[in-house]
Amino acid sequence: MERKLTATTEIDVHFYDVDSINMVWHGNYVKYLEVGREAFGKEFGIGYMDIYNLGYVTPIVDLQIRYKNIVKFDETLIVETSYVPSKSAKLIFNYLICKKSDKTIVAEATTTQIFMTKEGEFEVSTPDFYREWKNRWIA
Amino acid sequence: MERKLTATTEIDVHFYDVDSINMVWHGNYVKYLEVGREAFGKEFGIGYMDIYNLGYVTPIVDLQIRYKNIVKFDETLIVETSYVPSKSAKLIFNYLICKKSDKTIVAEATTTQIFMTKEGEFEVSTPDFYREWKNRWIA
Amino acid sequence: MERKLTATTEIDVHFYDVDSINMVWHGNYVKYLEVGREAFGKEFGIGYMDIYNLGYVTPIVDLQIRYKNIVKFDETLIVETSYVPSKSAKLIFNYLICKKSDKTIVAEATTTQIFMTKEGEFEVSTPDFYREWKNRWIA
Amino acid sequence: MERKLTATTEIDVHFYDVDSINMVWHGNYVKYLEVGREAFGKEFGIGYMDIYNLGYVTPIVDLQIRYKNIVKFDETLIVETSYVPSKSAKLIFNYLICKKSDKTIVAEATTTQIFMTKEGEFEVSTPDFYREWKNRWIA
Repeated sequence: MERKLTATTEIDVHFYDVDSINMVWHGNYVKYLEVGREAFGKEFGIGYMDIYNLGYVTPIVDLQIRYKNIVKFDETLIVETSYVPSKSAKLIFNYLICKKSDKTIVAEATTTQIFMTKEGEFEVSTPDFYREWKNRWIA
Repeated sequence: MERKLTATTEIDVHFYDVDSINMVWHGNYVKYLEVGREAFGKEFGIGYMDIYNLGYVTPIVDLQIRYKNIVKFDETLIVETSYVPSKSAKLIFNYLICKKSDKTIVAEATTTQIFMTKEGEFEVSTPDFYREWKNRWIA
Repeated sequence: MERKLTATTEIDVHFYDVDSINMVWHGNYVKYLEVGREAFGKEFGIGYMDIYNLGYVTPIVDLQIRYKNIVKFDETLIVETSYVPSKSAKLIFNYLICKKSDKTIVAEATTTQIFMTKEGEFEVSTPDFYREWKNRWIA
Repeated sequence: MERKLTATTEIDVHFYDVDSINMVWHGNYVKYLEVGREAFGKEFGIGYMDIYNLGYVTPIVDLQIRYKNIVKFDETLIVETSYVPSKSAKLIFNYLICKKSDKTIVAEATTTQIFMTKEGEFEVSTPDFYREWKNRWIA
């Protein structure tokens, strides 16, 4: 049976995140997803620098965000970032963003990343370290 | 038969758009889509201020981006923003982003917006001005 | 004798803050100053919403940043925001940003804000609430 | 007699540039200065990539912005970027930002950059290519 790997982190909404209709500008959620992914990477040993030091970067190839509720200045958000198991050489995450105050869900999202060598070559097969990471955490 | 409404605009990639792996940071594409939408709004009389002056704002409820190729500093992009007809009270756009130099497609995207009054009430039925706009441009 | 009013807050550097020469892009420090100001506002009861609810906003009219050292991805910064007493109707803050790890100073900054009514009129004389705030905290 | 070297470029203000008090967020002016610098670099052959290909990057060490007027959504700005001659190994620029519509000055700014090798060593003496560039354009 597969374990569900999830990291949880908090984000404060600042003045510069808010647009002229007094809500967080929709594009800023992409930053919140990145903060979530960074928290996941630290907790489960698969962060940006871990991967970079093994010779790879992991560009985003697909991004989907469904906005459910408005977020205002000065709120605190909770981002839950969950690993989505996949047989392919991809890193897929689901995200749930809610308000800390009353747990209202404000957005759900999914990102897909692929592996690219630092020299810029796309890696179609699963890198060894990623297979080992899956064996350790998912199997 | 429906007409295809498309606006085309150019965007220069600046140093501040590029991340530490020397490509445009994926979150910045959300800005490029907004520039495309603004160009569409100006060309077809349905821009942010046009709608705002009629009492509405149009928050994004769904965003999807598929990244196809890397973009580097100093390139010029072309954003094609096309209106997607829909019977519901929504504004849906498809986007095609390519490099000006060699027409390589770098991303495809879709956004969905709904209508909200300036007072913050969601509008489920199609606002009159939007029905008239559709009649003028699409029918 | 005047008291020195200082608020201290921590900021994590994220991937999206870093530019293509692997250091925090200089423009992002303006966000860090805002985070510092927000922390000050909360601690001393003179935050954005406090002021807004009294009918004022406080646009920045002067910004100075002196960059002392490079900041890299994944570092944690400490921002110290100190109120600078002034007889005029201004809000002046000094900032000291250092690395949490070894206390290296990475930047010093100063911002000056003036008072504007929500209707957009500049306020040349000191608003009552600000005089009272000064009396309470500085005198 | 020294010549004044100035590059002029236009910038459209987008929705994502505007904050919740309906004016361009002050931090976004740092981007506008960078756009101005890039225009200067192209016009006078001292752009980011020109310098990078010679082995150097030029981090900002000092930034000053004086905000003179509010800028709203959908305005077009003109940025004039002028080279400030200096005997030291620095790149200093003055900026004048005004509205295209009525030439109202909205901000004045100054930035100072120093030379750093790609390996991260600060260059105290004037690099050869910069001396030659000065001889060509200023002398």
